[in-house]
Amino acid sequence: MRKAVILLSGGLDSATILAVAKNDGFECYAMSFSYGQRHKIELLSAGKTAGRIGVAEHVTVEFDLSKWGGSALTSKDIAVPKNAAAHEINDSSAITAPITYVPARNTIFLSFAVAWAETIGAKDIFIGVNSVDYSGYPDCRPEFIASFAESARLGTRAADEGWRFEIHAPLQNLDKADIIRLGMSLGVDYSLTHSCYDPAPSGAPCGKCDSCVLRANGFAEAGISDPVLADIR
Amino acid sequence: MRKAVILLSGGLDSATILAVAKNDGFECYAMSFSYGQRHKIELLSAGKTAGRIGVAEHVTVEFDLSKWGGSALTSKDIAVPKNAAAHEINDSSAITAPITYVPARNTIFLSFAVAWAETIGAKDIFIGVNSVDYSGYPDCRPEFIASFAESARLGTRAADEGWRFEIHAPLQNLDKADIIRLGMSLGVDYSLTHSCYDPAPSGAPCGKCDSCVLRANGFAEAGISDPVLADIR
Repeated sequence: MRKAVILLSGGLDSATILAVAKNDGFECYAMSFSYGQRHKIELLSAGKTAGRIGVAEHVTVEFDLSKWGGSALTSKDIAVPKNAAAHEINDSSAITAPITYVPARNTIFLSFAVAWAETIGAKDIFIGVNSVDYSGYPDCRPEFIASFAESARLGTRAADEGWRFEIHAPLQNLDKADIIRLGMSLGVDYSLTHSCYDPAPSGAPCGKCDSCVLRANGFAEAGISDPVLADIR
Repeated sequence: MRKAVILLSGGLDSATILAVAKNDGFECYAMSFSYGQRHKIELLSAGKTAGRIGVAEHVTVEFDLSKWGGSALTSKDIAVPKNAAAHEINDSSAITAPITYVPARNTIFLSFAVAWAETIGAKDIFIGVNSVDYSGYPDCRPEFIASFAESARLGTRAADEGWRFEIHAPLQNLDKADIIRLGMSLGVDYSLTHSCYDPAPSGAPCGKCDSCVLRANGFAEAGISDPVLADIR
């Protein structure tokens, strides 16, 4: 059985890619990150989703990007935008990425995925990047993913042994409604997932941040009731 | 003054690149890693070297690669080879990298460097990789460094803003004696550096591991007395 490392944030997208990888017949190694994000509720969701879908192993790597901040998701000094797409709120003409972009976060996540994959003998990595809803995030671009796969090949034993890592991004060209439909067809339990950037201490989503709005619109367009957001309405 | 992020392990090579960056006129931001390595003595050395040469800031990023091991440097179950080049001891025909290679370590280190660089507005990163003495380490290859620089551009705001990270590897084609001569010419105090993979609890280098042997040969060839290894002879 081929092994794959799955980047599992606890959100809707990563739950869906875990289901895709499982459905594709991979033995799944789920990897989450406690990276100094605003809240850790998504890590509880990651654990629940890993348990529900079934993985060979689930590791959570810990480090602290809030040491240097630079994003609304890692700095308490920068507020999470509400009631609008974050990239519309960003008022800097020089910076196209939304303020919720965390500098080089996917580069770091993928680096750890490659390290674990090389160690356990996995050649496949799944990441839930998406070009449709998150078009302003530089590290969600397909060009980045393709380039990183080549860097990973050259920076590991892969190049010497004549193989390459395949970085699967099955959601790359889907919109949120498509992603939800795909996940539902694979039996994903979205009640276990968490999308909000700025939840209440209870864990309840705010319903107003960029991520909540995208999620709500996705469920609405798919004609499906969101088991999470529906609870707070 | 242009900012640069310098990967500073506490070893001889990284002390040298910090001196090179400083001499090139950069404002230096030093970055070290507590990554679950066998010993943390090198981190004390990194702090001393940063203090001596002078940096704008020195951060130590913490995470734990010993969670999955896969290297003599991160797993207590794998011994550090002694009295021979590690790549000669490695007995696996399929794996060309020495057993002291840590899967994707430089990929991870560079990812954090890019994250910090993007946040503080640095476009230059210095890394002490070398093709001569560490030819078996996949993540020391110039092809990897070049590819990673392109991934970093694509995975950050750099691509949108029309610039690129320059990853400086000034030691790439130097042998250990050349590196020591270069550092001495820039006033590096090598008594503050630590190279041994497997030091005694006191911090004294073993004198027999691959790294100690490379260091000793380098000082001998340069005709300079090693202030560290000389102490234990």
